[in-house]
Amino acid sequence: MTASRYDVLGIGNAIVDVIARAEDDFLVAQGMHKGGMALIDEARAAAIYAAMGPATESSGGSAANTIVGVASFGARAAFIGKVKGDELGKAFAHDIRAARVAFDVTPANGGPSTARCYIMVTPDGERTMNTFLGAAQDLKPDDIDEKTVADASIVYLEGYLWDPPQAKEAFIKAASIAHKAGRRVALTLSDSFCVDRYRAEFLDLIRKGIVDIVFSNEHELHSLYETADFAVATLALQKEAKLAVVTRSAKGCVVVTPDRIEAVPAAPVEQVVDVTGAGDLFAAGFLVGLARGKDHGTAAQLGAMAAAEVIQHVGARPAVSLKALAAENGLTL
Amino acid sequence: MTASRYDVLGIGNAIVDVIARAEDDFLVAQGMHKGGMALIDEARAAAIYAAMGPATESSGGSAANTIVGVASFGARAAFIGKVKGDELGKAFAHDIRAARVAFDVTPANGGPSTARCYIMVTPDGERTMNTFLGAAQDLKPDDIDEKTVADASIVYLEGYLWDPPQAKEAFIKAASIAHKAGRRVALTLSDSFCVDRYRAEFLDLIRKGIVDIVFSNEHELHSLYETADFAVATLALQKEAKLAVVTRSAKGCVVVTPDRIEAVPAAPVEQVVDVTGAGDLFAAGFLVGLARGKDHGTAAQLGAMAAAEVIQHVGARPAVSLKALAAENGLTL
Repeated sequence: MTASRYDVLGIGNAIVDVIARAEDDFLVAQGMHKGGMALIDEARAAAIYAAMGPATESSGGSAANTIVGVASFGARAAFIGKVKGDELGKAFAHDIRAARVAFDVTPANGGPSTARCYIMVTPDGERTMNTFLGAAQDLKPDDIDEKTVADASIVYLEGYLWDPPQAKEAFIKAASIAHKAGRRVALTLSDSFCVDRYRAEFLDLIRKGIVDIVFSNEHELHSLYETADFAVATLALQKEAKLAVVTRSAKGCVVVTPDRIEAVPAAPVEQVVDVTGAGDLFAAGFLVGLARGKDHGTAAQLGAMAAAEVIQHVGARPAVSLKALAAENGLTL
Repeated sequence: MTASRYDVLGIGNAIVDVIARAEDDFLVAQGMHKGGMALIDEARAAAIYAAMGPATESSGGSAANTIVGVASFGARAAFIGKVKGDELGKAFAHDIRAARVAFDVTPANGGPSTARCYIMVTPDGERTMNTFLGAAQDLKPDDIDEKTVADASIVYLEGYLWDPPQAKEAFIKAASIAHKAGRRVALTLSDSFCVDRYRAEFLDLIRKGIVDIVFSNEHELHSLYETADFAVATLALQKEAKLAVVTRSAKGCVVVTPDRIEAVPAAPVEQVVDVTGAGDLFAAGFLVGLARGKDHGTAAQLGAMAAAEVIQHVGARPAVSLKALAAENGLTL
């Protein structure tokens, strides 16, 4: 195994977030599952946009948010995902590069426009998402640059990649290249509805060792093992995963390895403004910790710190330097 | 004079803001005047965008921000300005309509893209703007709907309209229609550099009574009368304007009429996050007060309250209902 060029490479859907405040009534009227992510077609996207309030646009995408977080920690980061060469695609590319993330995927010339995620933030800070995948669906195995994958200590993949048909093949290709190069492969389960769509396949990825590190929140874990019992689900996960982290919002997280289950508390938060990106940024901190050879507890603390930062403002990417924040909190990288 | 359909109609450049945080060093390296607004061409826009940090996009435009503020007070509002039918143009139209503002200008099919303002927010909360006018330059007299103008109690125009060549004619047409219908015409001087470009013409608008109400900040007033002495400038303004308001940031504002100069304090602010939109929102509150027949002091208090709200968060449009905020502050509309 050679020295790595990147600490973490993320592969995921390249999405621009369209964020608006909304009342709970709006979610009910629109038939939206609060806290979930629904896939929508272009017609439904137009209808939701027409009904929703004034919005702001900012670059998003689950794995992309994580990778921007990784770069904010001062770690070396790269991203693979597909946009179109339209205005929003240019904004996505600008934002991720401006965050010092290597991003070299050729934008699509034709086909659907850059992916958008319509996010309703309710007064409790919870976010409800509706994603039009657009150009992100066209991520193909050809977009996975072998050298970039082989050069990253950890390849991080989002479960949402299972939605666009060809992205699944890209995912498998990336995992295979990474393992051949002696690297680790991480997966986030993304969303409980996503787990519901691909339960058998996600379990297969874990059981066959295609994935070395699993990120999950409580809801996703319950969905994966189809149980409402946290202890039962965690023990099931422990039997199958080499390394897993289960996030539990204000209750912190548990780090699961074959021989240990370690609880790490959440970082203090003054006021929850918008939970968008909480899981993504937790993953950023944990991955940076792992890539830099920290113990699991320290990695989880870095994750908790990054998650606490992102939920205290609107938007899914850090508003301050996570490297500086880690230093202030006495967490060395 | 018939009853009005709108309390305030705004006419201005329809612009999408591209907002990023920046250090003071960045402004220096880019040769930007801190706190000012510079007009840029497409090539410079591309160069600035490539150099600036991760950004968020949200609808802006000085008069458009004001009109969204007017609607947030629960007053009846309309806007005239030109976008292209591209993604950013659609976002502008969506956002202003979602704020319950009537907006019926046909988007341009061809020509330059929707106008963008690249805004750098420095750590002190100050904003430095670079505007690519794009489609906004194509606002023509034909875009001024006679019935809409005649139906508004106050027509509010931004000084920036003097930059796009044909918009000046549209401005004059709107003022003429308004006066024939017995309505009032308001002008904001927009920016001290803008005043520098059009000093003689702005003075002419005031002296000829084409403009009934003038909004200015201290810097713009000093530029208008080419003096660094606030008292001298204010007395000069008093001799020429029927009604003027001069805003002075934390020092509050002065309301100037031929027989009186009244100082009104600023509203309390916990922390200045981003001053973008401060003047625009002050104008919103003052205009709503005037349109609803309040005295000048109360109108200025409404303006101060709206300005204080908008500088305590990122972005140039209110994050809460100004109607509710006014009620909480005991200001009835």
